[in-house]
Amino acid sequence: MIQNNHQQYFIKLLGEENAYFDEAHKRAYSYDATRKHYLPDGVLFPRDEQDVSDILRYCNEHKIIIVPRGAGSGFTGGSLAANGGLVLSFEKHMNKILEIDLENLVAVVQPGVINAHLQKELALKNLFYPPDPASMDFSSIGGNVSENAGGMKAAKYGITKDYVMALRAVLPNGDIIRAGKRTVKDVAGYNLVGTLIASEGSLAVLTQITLKLIALPKYKKTAMGIFPSVEAAMNAVYQTLAKGVTPVSMEFLDNLSIRAVEEKFHKGLPIEAGAILIADVDGNVKESLEADLAVLKENFLEAGASEFKIAQNEEEAADIWFARRNASQSINVYGTLKLNEDITVPRSKLPKLLQGINEISQKYGFKIPCFGHTGDGNVHTNVMVVDKNDEEQVKRGHEAITEVFKLAISLDGTLSGEHGIGLSKAPFMHLAFSEAELNLMRSIKKAFDPNNILNPFKMGL
Amino acid sequence: MIQNNHQQYFIKLLGEENAYFDEAHKRAYSYDATRKHYLPDGVLFPRDEQDVSDILRYCNEHKIIIVPRGAGSGFTGGSLAANGGLVLSFEKHMNKILEIDLENLVAVVQPGVINAHLQKELALKNLFYPPDPASMDFSSIGGNVSENAGGMKAAKYGITKDYVMALRAVLPNGDIIRAGKRTVKDVAGYNLVGTLIASEGSLAVLTQITLKLIALPKYKKTAMGIFPSVEAAMNAVYQTLAKGVTPVSMEFLDNLSIRAVEEKFHKGLPIEAGAILIADVDGNVKESLEADLAVLKENFLEAGASEFKIAQNEEEAADIWFARRNASQSINVYGTLKLNEDITVPRSKLPKLLQGINEISQKYGFKIPCFGHTGDGNVHTNVMVVDKNDEEQVKRGHEAITEVFKLAISLDGTLSGEHGIGLSKAPFMHLAFSEAELNLMRSIKKAFDPNNILNPFKMGL
Repeated sequence: MIQNNHQQYFIKLLGEENAYFDEAHKRAYSYDATRKHYLPDGVLFPRDEQDVSDILRYCNEHKIIIVPRGAGSGFTGGSLAANGGLVLSFEKHMNKILEIDLENLVAVVQPGVINAHLQKELALKNLFYPPDPASMDFSSIGGNVSENAGGMKAAKYGITKDYVMALRAVLPNGDIIRAGKRTVKDVAGYNLVGTLIASEGSLAVLTQITLKLIALPKYKKTAMGIFPSVEAAMNAVYQTLAKGVTPVSMEFLDNLSIRAVEEKFHKGLPIEAGAILIADVDGNVKESLEADLAVLKENFLEAGASEFKIAQNEEEAADIWFARRNASQSINVYGTLKLNEDITVPRSKLPKLLQGINEISQKYGFKIPCFGHTGDGNVHTNVMVVDKNDEEQVKRGHEAITEVFKLAISLDGTLSGEHGIGLSKAPFMHLAFSEAELNLMRSIKKAFDPNNILNPFKMGL
Repeated sequence: MIQNNHQQYFIKLLGEENAYFDEAHKRAYSYDATRKHYLPDGVLFPRDEQDVSDILRYCNEHKIIIVPRGAGSGFTGGSLAANGGLVLSFEKHMNKILEIDLENLVAVVQPGVINAHLQKELALKNLFYPPDPASMDFSSIGGNVSENAGGMKAAKYGITKDYVMALRAVLPNGDIIRAGKRTVKDVAGYNLVGTLIASEGSLAVLTQITLKLIALPKYKKTAMGIFPSVEAAMNAVYQTLAKGVTPVSMEFLDNLSIRAVEEKFHKGLPIEAGAILIADVDGNVKESLEADLAVLKENFLEAGASEFKIAQNEEEAADIWFARRNASQSINVYGTLKLNEDITVPRSKLPKLLQGINEISQKYGFKIPCFGHTGDGNVHTNVMVVDKNDEEQVKRGHEAITEVFKLAISLDGTLSGEHGIGLSKAPFMHLAFSEAELNLMRSIKKAFDPNNILNPFKMGL
């Protein structure tokens, strides 16, 4: 509960149309994609950076928790007010594209801008911001930066952190800081941009984001290979990349995922295959794409693909992508509760990872279909609990997930390639980090936020 | 001076062949490319990460300053023991390439590895690590990461930070930490890799660096345009990038630089030209390079180039590059003391920057030739003091440099695009950063290094 005098401060500061303490608003901002609920003590809609500064300065003085929130589409509870406090939402006012700068190829946006909205505006100018998390139609750039969101195009184009050139942010004490420049090169002072990316709203509140853009590639082509095993598919991936061809996407489905899509949609997929690999290549010169596809074909066949196909038009491309796009919804043929994680390992370790996951599957008696990004080693791992109402099964499902995490870490992988830690993965941080590393992160948190008011107790810190 | 008991500890720990307190060694490690000298109290050559940890733990307990040192090629005094203490050098033992991993396309190196040595080893395997600071023949990867070194290829390939995937490091208290993974995606915990890059050896001592590699492009072509003005040249740059062609390098010389090279080497350069632009393009498909060159030609001519030339062989390419490569040594025709800085502005601001520099030149009566990287806005700005023995002139030269910094910052630029802050630019940090920003950096420094033993009092912190 937030005291009445505090409520009055915020209402006076922001106007009553921007500061809510009623049940309906608190409920509306109590959830995210984890489907967990935590009622905040209120919801504030700052109109500008000065509002953010005033709010934080006041909250810091009165030790009121602030939880910044983009679109609430996160998978790990980063925007949940799990310890009470006020939700700071950017969706009402701070949701503008401020500038698209053609000479420097940057966009300047407020944190509440929706990723897909930015993409559309950029495409009108033949520009391109590559990071495309699956949530892009509703997730915000502020959230994307705070979680360092990935996407389908990471193998070629990298992830959010590779596109953030500069930030404006407000520290918990209300101080407004600028970090980075609209330049490729800036090495004055500590790399505050690098520190703030992926900090899950726990170090400062982002108020303005300057993103690097590139020209929209003119052409795109899709190819597909069917492989007897994941190992064979991975060999095709290594060889392709080593020859200097970096597909935009290199997506795989394992046998279980292929079977699930086939069971649900009857598309004539190869249900005996060990893996399907789907690759997109892009560029501005047709000959260059053709050369890339020739390399793909050679490597896929050499690695043992029984079939290699290049989409001849957009319809065929969509057909190839159908299995991948529908994998996530199809695998519910294996259970009523999906415990999905986004572990990532060095791509050379993918075969070992999948073999280990198979062993965990055997041990626990759950199917664990996997699909995802072979180009960057990011695997969507889905422990399918058969009956979600069976408490014992759900418990064993979570035990299986814990083993998956341990396995990924033993293979030099990470707990999260895309979703962040937030609340959901906080209990596993000690598996991935030493006490010295966790203490260092706690020291950094304290350097930014000595009173621990900003999204506190997240990330296992 | 370091007490005898401390000396004995280090000799016992490292062996007397790895711990020196004699005058000759102290002198040998007292300088860097700034040509300033500060005698350290001793020089230590750790054999491995455990040595680094033991040294730091001991120094932290006894409040002994440690200054990590790569190759001592820095331009801003980052590796100078300006406040005494022990130099920690990696050039004797911790200078190995530990692994070149073809499946994941990464190299794992110790901090003392020389950039060019790594490049050569990689080229043998058709691999490529793009960051190529001008010092690459002698600068170390540890130093490159600590300063976030740039180079000629930044417009297309980015800078050091874009290639550091993971680090091992030792904190001032001796704790060994790992940061990052051998994966494109890793969003678990704070971005410690991002924080350590460019921290100039003041937060932790790097002991192992994992670098992203790419396949070595098969083909390279060089082109050149002669422009009536810098504005015209910059228009050619914007248009080229906006059309999706990103040359590896886009280098310019201004009129003063062109004249200086011509005066010294009589190559028949266009001494009336406002600017020369030199562009390299690369790739794996010949048609793609030809398409890029066609775009360059069209945009250069449209922007007003009086001449456009494509090198037909390596000799012609070397000839085109001659002016750029020899600009730095040629401009000494204008003076006996060169005060050179590496300011960077958003590339759209380059014409305004050069116009402002021209005004500063008029005001102070020094020639200020400029050349550098138009693709990324990084300009090597050289205030040429006519007589280095005239104290008044030197003082006015430094005043001119201060005005250049103020100008760059007024144009949303940075004090340093490549060289870092160290000692040399520390007095200017307050021009570029607010007190809140500097205080935040000081808090970060304290979070890592509460006793302030690691390269202290640098960067204006």
